[in-house]
Amino acid sequence: MKEGYVAGADIGGTKISVVIASKNKIICKTVEKTKKQGSIDTIPNQIDDMIKISCNQIGIKKSSILNLGIISCGAFEKKGKYTRIYANNICRGISNNLPNNWPYLILEKRLSKLYKNIKLMNDAKASAQAEYLFGSGKKYKNFVYVTWSTGIGTGAYVNGFLLKGKNNNAPHAGHIYLSDSNLKCNCGQLGDFESLVSGASLEKIYGKKPEEIFKEYKQGNKKAIKLVKKAAKIFARGLVSINAILDTEAFILGGSIMKNKHILLPLIKKEFYNSFKPLTKDVKITTSKLEYSIGDLGALSLVMNKDWIRSWQKRKPWKHAPEAVNIPL
Amino acid sequence: MKEGYVAGADIGGTKISVVIASKNKIICKTVEKTKKQGSIDTIPNQIDDMIKISCNQIGIKKSSILNLGIISCGAFEKKGKYTRIYANNICRGISNNLPNNWPYLILEKRLSKLYKNIKLMNDAKASAQAEYLFGSGKKYKNFVYVTWSTGIGTGAYVNGFLLKGKNNNAPHAGHIYLSDSNLKCNCGQLGDFESLVSGASLEKIYGKKPEEIFKEYKQGNKKAIKLVKKAAKIFARGLVSINAILDTEAFILGGSIMKNKHILLPLIKKEFYNSFKPLTKDVKITTSKLEYSIGDLGALSLVMNKDWIRSWQKRKPWKHAPEAVNIPL
Repeated sequence: MKEGYVAGADIGGTKISVVIASKNKIICKTVEKTKKQGSIDTIPNQIDDMIKISCNQIGIKKSSILNLGIISCGAFEKKGKYTRIYANNICRGISNNLPNNWPYLILEKRLSKLYKNIKLMNDAKASAQAEYLFGSGKKYKNFVYVTWSTGIGTGAYVNGFLLKGKNNNAPHAGHIYLSDSNLKCNCGQLGDFESLVSGASLEKIYGKKPEEIFKEYKQGNKKAIKLVKKAAKIFARGLVSINAILDTEAFILGGSIMKNKHILLPLIKKEFYNSFKPLTKDVKITTSKLEYSIGDLGALSLVMNKDWIRSWQKRKPWKHAPEAVNIPL
Repeated sequence: MKEGYVAGADIGGTKISVVIASKNKIICKTVEKTKKQGSIDTIPNQIDDMIKISCNQIGIKKSSILNLGIISCGAFEKKGKYTRIYANNICRGISNNLPNNWPYLILEKRLSKLYKNIKLMNDAKASAQAEYLFGSGKKYKNFVYVTWSTGIGTGAYVNGFLLKGKNNNAPHAGHIYLSDSNLKCNCGQLGDFESLVSGASLEKIYGKKPEEIFKEYKQGNKKAIKLVKKAAKIFARGLVSINAILDTEAFILGGSIMKNKHILLPLIKKEFYNSFKPLTKDVKITTSKLEYSIGDLGALSLVMNKDWIRSWQKRKPWKHAPEAVNIPL
């Protein structure tokens, strides 16, 4: 990898963020709502546009960015040259309430014409990698990162190695079944982890955005309190299931819903440690120290060399990263 | 390991079986109901007695058996010198309907006085190892063995390595949550995999032993048909959850309930492949070719050397193993 500038893009169900970094620091960050209408190239074009805007902003040429790390929600499938990303909060192909006909995302076809080196990884898996390299994960050989956000994402280290699975989709715990409920996940399943408590599902159930739900929780609204308590209980049962399979040392929790950690952590821990004790009692539950930088670091880590990683481990430049600039749609 | 004779013991919720083998063959197999009353040394003494009876039967001295491989259901916890086995179908400590006060099993304390070399492993994990060494698992770098029996047991290979977890309890999928049901598992959890469809649970729900349930299914009994269909559906949802976390290549199914594979496999496959397709469509679901020998091979594999394993891989002596001799309680 030639040094200079690298870009990282984080594709979520709600927003896309792009960062530009040099070996010394994160230079800028832009955030935009995820576009869900238009041609199948809408998302790769959006990423390229965001990089263009970022480069203009900081006065560098877009052509100086050769390396682009992209992380995305969704299940991955390598088909021939390209990776199909089944992102069920973005593509209509596996959902019924989205304004497009995309069966899946394909990013490399368009972007490989524009950037020399592109690396892709599932967002939660890359976040686990960021935790392992730069955050709380350094202490553990076995841990699971769980993001509670628009969807539920997971990434795991097992005996010091990033768990991958045959198609790079392990762990994909958003789609484990937890209930007999008829709540339907965007993936089509009834009663799975995401259908019950993802940010998108909580909004569907309550009729208001998660920020509002937690605001009303704090105001003492009984309906909000009931929903949050139930959601935390289900989330904890999800962690119990993941741990039953991986027998992990620690859960590191992140994501926009987990910003309410003072409310959620005690509820989650209570339910988790009440489950089958021989499996749960030695497990630590903590939150990510990387917080808002985790996705950026995950994406950038895909195109950083070892030297660069070692330097960032020492200097922690993400702590002085600039504020995100919002680009309105 | 000095060659000669080795013994393997398989501790299940319903029965214990013991095999004696030489490098050439499995010489004898005895089966006895699992004793659940008496002192905390009841189970290790039962194993020693069974080995004694076996040795008498085939005319060898018990002292010629130095190596003993033991596999058991239950979650393991290494505490100091000994392993605590939380076997929730055997020990009252974590259940309410068993006639003893054992908090867990401890086997090494008693048996290490009687045998030079003892190796322990969870039964389903050892069965996965047997599948990998001698059965269908040889084809795969990633597969999960699932036994559907008195309990639900699981063992997994990930990227060619036996998955262990921090306490050697991965995967322990019998205790993943699958339902909001109030059915109580012997581990204390409500609505987990075992509480819903383990052999013990089916018996509790239906009031008759699983053999009877499947007999009545074949006779066209509507209640039995309804239960079996529901159980197969839940079992399939369990496999979906395990696969969501491990992204495996294949499930290899075994255990006493899976003897009814002609009834169960089509039902399981229908439900499994109807779940989120990007994760499920490439997964094979098959049954164990080792069948009744899998536990014996799992236990013996713990105390076989490499040479011995290679020789058995070629000659498959378990195919000519003697019938089990039942010892009445």
